[in-house]
Amino acid sequence: MLKPMINHRSSDFTALLRSITEKGKYLFQTKENVVTITASGTGGVEAVAFALVRPGDNVVVPVYGEFGQRLAEAVELAGGNAVKVFAEAGHVPRMDDIKEAIRRVDKLKAVYLVHNETSTGCAVPYVQELAKLAHERDAFFVVDGVSSLGGYAIPVDDWGVDMCVTASQKCLAAPPGLVLISLNSKVAAFLKKTPPTVRYFDLGKHLDFLEHGYTPFTPAVSLYYALEEALSVLVEETLEKRVERHAKCASQLYSAMESMGLEGFAHKTCRSNTVIAVNYPKGVEDERFREVLSDEHDIVITGGFASLKGKIFRIGSMGDVTSAHIQRTVDAMAKTFSKLGYSVDPRKVADVVTRGS
Amino acid sequence: MLKPMINHRSSDFTALLRSITEKGKYLFQTKENVVTITASGTGGVEAVAFALVRPGDNVVVPVYGEFGQRLAEAVELAGGNAVKVFAEAGHVPRMDDIKEAIRRVDKLKAVYLVHNETSTGCAVPYVQELAKLAHERDAFFVVDGVSSLGGYAIPVDDWGVDMCVTASQKCLAAPPGLVLISLNSKVAAFLKKTPPTVRYFDLGKHLDFLEHGYTPFTPAVSLYYALEEALSVLVEETLEKRVERHAKCASQLYSAMESMGLEGFAHKTCRSNTVIAVNYPKGVEDERFREVLSDEHDIVITGGFASLKGKIFRIGSMGDVTSAHIQRTVDAMAKTFSKLGYSVDPRKVADVVTRGS
Repeated sequence: MLKPMINHRSSDFTALLRSITEKGKYLFQTKENVVTITASGTGGVEAVAFALVRPGDNVVVPVYGEFGQRLAEAVELAGGNAVKVFAEAGHVPRMDDIKEAIRRVDKLKAVYLVHNETSTGCAVPYVQELAKLAHERDAFFVVDGVSSLGGYAIPVDDWGVDMCVTASQKCLAAPPGLVLISLNSKVAAFLKKTPPTVRYFDLGKHLDFLEHGYTPFTPAVSLYYALEEALSVLVEETLEKRVERHAKCASQLYSAMESMGLEGFAHKTCRSNTVIAVNYPKGVEDERFREVLSDEHDIVITGGFASLKGKIFRIGSMGDVTSAHIQRTVDAMAKTFSKLGYSVDPRKVADVVTRGS
Repeated sequence: MLKPMINHRSSDFTALLRSITEKGKYLFQTKENVVTITASGTGGVEAVAFALVRPGDNVVVPVYGEFGQRLAEAVELAGGNAVKVFAEAGHVPRMDDIKEAIRRVDKLKAVYLVHNETSTGCAVPYVQELAKLAHERDAFFVVDGVSSLGGYAIPVDDWGVDMCVTASQKCLAAPPGLVLISLNSKVAAFLKKTPPTVRYFDLGKHLDFLEHGYTPFTPAVSLYYALEEALSVLVEETLEKRVERHAKCASQLYSAMESMGLEGFAHKTCRSNTVIAVNYPKGVEDERFREVLSDEHDIVITGGFASLKGKIFRIGSMGDVTSAHIQRTVDAMAKTFSKLGYSVDPRKVADVVTRGS
């Protein structure tokens, strides 16, 4: 990030952007296009909503937490009718319920899906199946992979994901501030015919400029340098190995929690490999627990969102996470729990890394 | 920017944001609020347009170049009718023409003004006067100060600017990727009553979170560190001295151009202190000139926008610019002009810095 500032209309910037785009294609496993925008994940989600949704359009949105809710809101901001399919707590929506919604909605424009729900630690196992159902109804299929892509593989061409969005600071382990969006020629053709009513997030404009090696608006150049480096690290590790690493670390975490007598919030059939949500044992106070963990062990985790506040804690296990981090985290948690009156035998989690893989 | 990444929901981030907000208030000379958003200047302009403009609203927009055009477009994207007041080439719109528009427009909602037009090197001298006229009609007054604030003072409280937007990479000399927006309680009250139909650029939401020391969406934390440092440098130098420095450097540049027999594109009554636009002498080819200047002297300037392409060149004279930079720039230009057949006696510009202040 400390490289000298370059003009974003120079050939130096074009080379940087082209490298990011090529490595981005590796990340999404696509031969189609990948654009990069200076914004947060929520900004990227707004961009994919405004790209396809026009006033009056019917859009099916499976909702199983806060970010699904936000995705539905983005669809509504763009003027669409979001037909939400809900789930039981700790679950993802049932496939039959989504099928039913997809079948019954008149003139279905698109299905918008959160792949991995940061607020509940659930991830859907049926991305590809859903893509097929959407396409059978001639609808677009869009995936919010903000907190999962890289920790999970989402091969967008193979699976039929017309558009997918992710952010720099999650499984890519770059600083926050950039989003990456894959979009195929079907989306590009639609954007050409029907430009969206926003400008900064106008993906058609981003595509036009990308063709010439530029971004339409001044990019956060220092973050582009950082993202290029982060993507190079991914290419070096390989996507396959990174996905394996995330699965292994998640499995170690879940089994350590079990050893401590704790229960995951998400049901086993849909628990996430990047966000591990766990029910608090009785008597342990959320804010105090996270405070001790942060102050005494330098480990920052988050609590629950909205109605789950005080009931669960969530561990972000993504990016450059390794088994050594996991071991350190569970050791610190065992100590913290014991300190707060929920006694944990440290030997129970002493060899998580050796056991849990 | 290389400080360790912090959680944007932590007290560390709150302290960083509060420091930026306080120093931002110094920059805008305001007691009201200043929000920071991860986006380019164009994103910030979209935010200020969607903040106040609702479908059917009438908005007067003085247009004297590309960025005025874009501001009018942003107003139209938000559903407004942009009543444009144009100018002759190299001039800003005549005050009488703007007055006339402000008077005749039915139910005037706002006046949106570009303070400094990067595409033509013109700046308006009548910001305060225009604020008064807008307020006499009970309309909001909004200023795009992206390429000027810091190089110019725009005391928003004193002058009656209800909202003003600027970007990190111009006169503040920070990396690109952040915008700063001042907005007063009148705007805040309107936003509360009538939330905009966008989310990432919803300034009401940004205000709500700012009150608690946060941003609503994940901020580009590394850029916040850089901006905080850039604003500290401003506070140390003082706004007054920075404005003087920009005026002095601009004056040196204009007088050097004159010494070389060149003519500024902008009329003397409205020429900018941050973007110096100059007509090419006959026979000098734009791209070749800028190529030699860049390749042989490491000085990057830009050409003309759209219809001015090939006719003018533009020097960005802002941020950490000093008289030493000016001397080096004009020396290099004299050599480059001579090389390309437009002979300049190097002695004519040898002591620009000593003469031109």
